[in-house]
Amino acid sequence: MAAKEKTLEDLFHETLKDIYFAEKKILTALPKLAKAANSDDLRAAFEKHATETEAQVGRLEDVFELIDKPAKGKTCPAILGLIEEGQEVMKDFKDSDALDAGLLAGAQAVEHYEISRYGTLIAWAEQMGLDDAARLLKQNLAEEEKTDQSLTKLAETAVNYQAAA
Amino acid sequence: MAAKEKTLEDLFHETLKDIYFAEKKILTALPKLAKAANSDDLRAAFEKHATETEAQVGRLEDVFELIDKPAKGKTCPAILGLIEEGQEVMKDFKDSDALDAGLLAGAQAVEHYEISRYGTLIAWAEQMGLDDAARLLKQNLAEEEKTDQSLTKLAETAVNYQAAA
Repeated sequence: MAAKEKTLEDLFHETLKDIYFAEKKILTALPKLAKAANSDDLRAAFEKHATETEAQVGRLEDVFELIDKPAKGKTCPAILGLIEEGQEVMKDFKDSDALDAGLLAGAQAVEHYEISRYGTLIAWAEQMGLDDAARLLKQNLAEEEKTDQSLTKLAETAVNYQAAA
Repeated sequence: MAAKEKTLEDLFHETLKDIYFAEKKILTALPKLAKAANSDDLRAAFEKHATETEAQVGRLEDVFELIDKPAKGKTCPAILGLIEEGQEVMKDFKDSDALDAGLLAGAQAVEHYEISRYGTLIAWAEQMGLDDAARLLKQNLAEEEKTDQSLTKLAETAVNYQAAA
């Protein structure tokens, strides 16, 4: 394999495996975030996003099928680092009014990671003429952007003000 | 210290240390990205952003001063993960036309991490009435957003088309 030059298709496939691994990690992290959250609104937001994430994982499996590859993740050090930071906040701010603000910030960092990955994958899919894949990835991107906006709204209202009080 | 409940101020300080560590890591990573890039435009973009990042580090030091804390980073697992992913791409796509597309994607993931962190820090600074800190952080945020937009433009034009050709 070493002799064959890698292409944009390979890069797309590698990055798809990366976000697939990441989404599945997020799926296991979200219930823990929901459990830790003090605010009912924040807990509800995490629970809602867990349901969305399940559907997103399904769409990624469809994309794997479209490019004739098995749905398989590969370790994504970025998401592991992001989740590790969230766990630190959960531990260090366990009994603090600022906990929710910290959880929210961690979740938004994760959303931004996903937004950047989907943006990239969509651009590549379009350049390679993989229109069906692009369409599925755009659905995931739209959901991540909406989630990020809802989290910003929560951050601007109850959750942070409680922490600052 | 264990008895004292943590506040939003503590969370702000911890997150400031996190992004300070991250910016300094990015400062050492950017010359390597510039050296690896095939396209002159991409190399120039990385070099320009290195200069901006130096100024951003300086602004963060000003923020530390505003809150009367020493300018000190703390390990940020997220940026380490993001940089590790960039290094993987550099290695795996070394002699590939898709290398620049991969470098670009990695850089955009880093930008999004920073954008999310600055967004969070600005919201908290404003809630705590730290207007001078918020102003400095907004300058950094504006530069990161502009960098991300320039990278998107590059991704949509020369760099990726070359990879797809």
